[in-house]
Amino acid sequence: MGLFSKDIKSMDDLFVHTLQDIYYAENKIVKALPTMMQKASNPALKKAFETHLHETENHVARLDEVFRMHGTEARGVDCPAIDGIIEEAEEVAGEVEDPRVLDAALIAAAQAVEHYEQTRYGTLVAWAKELGRNDCADLLQKTLDEEKATDKKLTELALTKVNLQAAE
Amino acid sequence: MGLFSKDIKSMDDLFVHTLQDIYYAENKIVKALPTMMQKASNPALKKAFETHLHETENHVARLDEVFRMHGTEARGVDCPAIDGIIEEAEEVAGEVEDPRVLDAALIAAAQAVEHYEQTRYGTLVAWAKELGRNDCADLLQKTLDEEKATDKKLTELALTKVNLQAAE
Repeated sequence: MGLFSKDIKSMDDLFVHTLQDIYYAENKIVKALPTMMQKASNPALKKAFETHLHETENHVARLDEVFRMHGTEARGVDCPAIDGIIEEAEEVAGEVEDPRVLDAALIAAAQAVEHYEQTRYGTLVAWAKELGRNDCADLLQKTLDEEKATDKKLTELALTKVNLQAAE
Repeated sequence: MGLFSKDIKSMDDLFVHTLQDIYYAENKIVKALPTMMQKASNPALKKAFETHLHETENHVARLDEVFRMHGTEARGVDCPAIDGIIEEAEEVAGEVEDPRVLDAALIAAAQAVEHYEQTRYGTLVAWAKELGRNDCADLLQKTLDEEKATDKKLTELALTKVNLQAAE
């Protein structure tokens, strides 16, 4: 981003900037998930993080395809939002000793990540449609649907297994 | 948070920590919303930010009440997540000149804030219930419902007014 000029001039520029933002975020999540998997104790939670790691790698590949369709080089821009969300997750996890309480904290952290992704993909789908890029919107919608499904699965895990153990 | 000891020992500690996190976040949002109101051009968007400022002030008061019911002093802890989300909103807004594109960027930023709040309040409601604190859960649920309603209103505004103008 330039210091002396305003770099986002059109809706298309804003769309590309937000694509770059979520590209950085997805790549950061790919790096964070193995640590979360390792910290989790509940086997179903470990498995959920592992499954989501594979999905997230696929989301990066799908973004590569959206950049290609749009005719723009695939690259990320710094995304202080996801940096902050992951920094907070690490800080909180570092303060918890009891593995059952840690599992509850890890689910909450993962859901914060999912919600961030949902809001960005929701926005990108809407903007792609308005820009007449239904091809990009369709691909972005697929990822949005998967993020929502992961969030729902984490809520179910929290309510049926992890939190009940942690509050015992 | 202590550097040499782990401060979150129980689910109740984790609940209080997350209350402190969202208390910091709500107070930060109270400070950020007047700037967003001022930057917005679309009158319906300005009005939505103004309404949400009053709601957010009420959310802070409701958290004060939850702390009181729980018997814990109301205070915030640093929340890198909301700091990052708001930093990113300011960075992007600073890069946009066209007021119609800026409105679209402001809605996207506000929705990222709403989604962060939804995930934290959703977690807090679930944890309060498991800790047998339905009194706290009921109050937190009221705020969660309002955050969801605001998010829905912003989506409608984006789809019916703001984005269409910006993509013209």
